[in-house]
Amino acid sequence: MKFELLATDGAARAGRLTTTNGVVDTPMFMPVGTHAAVKALGPDDLRAAGAQIVLANTYHLFLRPGHELVRELGGLHRFMGWSGAILTDSGGFQVFSLSKLRKISEAGVEFRSPVDGSTHFLSPEIAVEVQQALGADIIHPLDECLAYPVSRLDAERSLELTLRWAARSRAAHAGPGRTSQAMFGIVQGGVDADLRRQATRATVDLGFDGYAIGGMAVGEPKPTMYDLTELVAGLLPADQPRYLMGVGKPDDLVHSVARGVDMFDCVLPTRNARNGQAFTADGPLTLKQARYTRDQAPLDAACGCYACRGFSRAYLRHLFMAGELLSHRLLTLHNVTFFLGLMREMRAAIVAGAFGGFQARFFARYAVAHGEESGDTPSP
Amino acid sequence: MKFELLATDGAARAGRLTTTNGVVDTPMFMPVGTHAAVKALGPDDLRAAGAQIVLANTYHLFLRPGHELVRELGGLHRFMGWSGAILTDSGGFQVFSLSKLRKISEAGVEFRSPVDGSTHFLSPEIAVEVQQALGADIIHPLDECLAYPVSRLDAERSLELTLRWAARSRAAHAGPGRTSQAMFGIVQGGVDADLRRQATRATVDLGFDGYAIGGMAVGEPKPTMYDLTELVAGLLPADQPRYLMGVGKPDDLVHSVARGVDMFDCVLPTRNARNGQAFTADGPLTLKQARYTRDQAPLDAACGCYACRGFSRAYLRHLFMAGELLSHRLLTLHNVTFFLGLMREMRAAIVAGAFGGFQARFFARYAVAHGEESGDTPSP
Repeated sequence: MKFELLATDGAARAGRLTTTNGVVDTPMFMPVGTHAAVKALGPDDLRAAGAQIVLANTYHLFLRPGHELVRELGGLHRFMGWSGAILTDSGGFQVFSLSKLRKISEAGVEFRSPVDGSTHFLSPEIAVEVQQALGADIIHPLDECLAYPVSRLDAERSLELTLRWAARSRAAHAGPGRTSQAMFGIVQGGVDADLRRQATRATVDLGFDGYAIGGMAVGEPKPTMYDLTELVAGLLPADQPRYLMGVGKPDDLVHSVARGVDMFDCVLPTRNARNGQAFTADGPLTLKQARYTRDQAPLDAACGCYACRGFSRAYLRHLFMAGELLSHRLLTLHNVTFFLGLMREMRAAIVAGAFGGFQARFFARYAVAHGEESGDTPSP
Repeated sequence: MKFELLATDGAARAGRLTTTNGVVDTPMFMPVGTHAAVKALGPDDLRAAGAQIVLANTYHLFLRPGHELVRELGGLHRFMGWSGAILTDSGGFQVFSLSKLRKISEAGVEFRSPVDGSTHFLSPEIAVEVQQALGADIIHPLDECLAYPVSRLDAERSLELTLRWAARSRAAHAGPGRTSQAMFGIVQGGVDADLRRQATRATVDLGFDGYAIGGMAVGEPKPTMYDLTELVAGLLPADQPRYLMGVGKPDDLVHSVARGVDMFDCVLPTRNARNGQAFTADGPLTLKQARYTRDQAPLDAACGCYACRGFSRAYLRHLFMAGELLSHRLLTLHNVTFFLGLMREMRAAIVAGAFGGFQARFFARYAVAHGEESGDTPSP
């Protein structure tokens, strides 16, 4: 993997990540393909939306269909028919957020599968082995994710464990099964600035191909998230990519790019599509609202996606209200197109040295029309 | 609308139906787009599958979003973004199969909406008006559909009502709101050969643009269905199209084309796709079976659809088992492609005067491998 920094504008960066499976222009958003599929979209749709890289969840694929099967079938790219880049997380976040009866030890974490109740064990070494079998272009070390809020003592203890696991992951990745996969370190440390600083330095000292900022968007106030992102990004090597995990809303993306982040993933565009929410430059719109019943306009007049070229809000609302599966595909396609278009606009603004003006125009339009609140994720 | 008979081979016919919205080569299968969308497929998918005409359900669209709204938004073609031909049924079948508390009188039928419990009334005249608002290329008169089995007396009484409603529908269609839409008559009459004969003659006497054979595939034995289809088709004008409503399985399609039917619709390829069933020349295959877990072959090696070009059975099984929405799109796309490919093969065989050989090859392969039973429709 190669990362080139092409331009900066303040802390904002435009770059190019070259992976075994294609180029990723940064800043970039990665649609989430939990089970080796971005919900409701085929690889054809993803390409049409402008995706260059997707995220797949190690935890889910470990449980079903199993990493050995994916390896046997030629790895994730071939399995899911996606010729672009793929990033896998380590499974840590899901073990801690989705599994019951987990038991953490120095060795690793034991947990019960929500699919069939079976018991599984992930260690840093096993997480690397699983991700090697899956074959993504970018992989991650197993980490412990804490809920928010948490005591300083718990945060310290957790960070120490995450760092020891990171060192073991790095060693496993450099071991006999070594692949050409890149590995990003994950910076944890909770909401304490000192701990985050310490976490960043210690993670960078281990030496990874890029750095993920983890444990954000878990319930902390937005200003805290922005401040910590700025803090961590400022301590990371300038010549390596930075990935803010699980973020976020369109305005979060702009705020975070302004603070030096290069890569993002979030279920927001895909999950909210299935709840009938479409993102536009004026803010999100919720198709279940009766005001769209007779609305002949496309979701977003400026959008070139298939949903906006062929269908009215009235029709898309009808599909959503009738529970039609096509609604999920069309709204997801639009939302992913919108998120990727936003990233493209940010790249262009950074390259042009005009990111300040871009931000002003974006927030004037996006915030005024609908505001932060209406962008909140409805429950799935 | 214009119908040209291009070739016959025994009772089997190849023809060309020219509608305001494109040509329909017959024999043809119509994917079902109940709520103005074929479940899980966009118009792009439908085109790729080879669809020339889709069916939309008057009953469902009357209840939601309402025919007036569809008219206001430019009619069904524009509403659903489908530039090919559209056929609507009259709503009769659904009133009798889906609605509660229906009250039939000479005037029409009152029923309660399963969507919101509201009470509605359909008469032959209203059904025509609704279908004029929807704007399909081919529309149908309101008819009464009987359950199977039914007494001879009930069948006679029902047929008489259907014929009186057909006459009123014809008159309404020729009335002041007249459109360029074609109207097919519906031949009912239950499972009694005499009644079917009588129904056919009386319906033809009313003079429609084509004829639908209704009340089939409602539980009667297969040989009865084939015999009645042959009987009715034999009495219909040779120079007009014939449509067997709600049929059917691939083998039913072949048997019915052999008996002179030109058009079909059925939820089988779309509904069974959502249950994980894929149709192939060797018979249907059920992806939940463990035997497909490691199967690297495409669903059907002879199929050129996107699902077969890009994905293994193992991946499609994984998507289905994980409840991924993409499973519905890919399997539906494949099944519709298979059904439309089967119709295309039949057309070619008829034109070549080789339909007998085609049938022999089809049944040797389709029946031997899986048989009739495994083609049964699972519940949705």
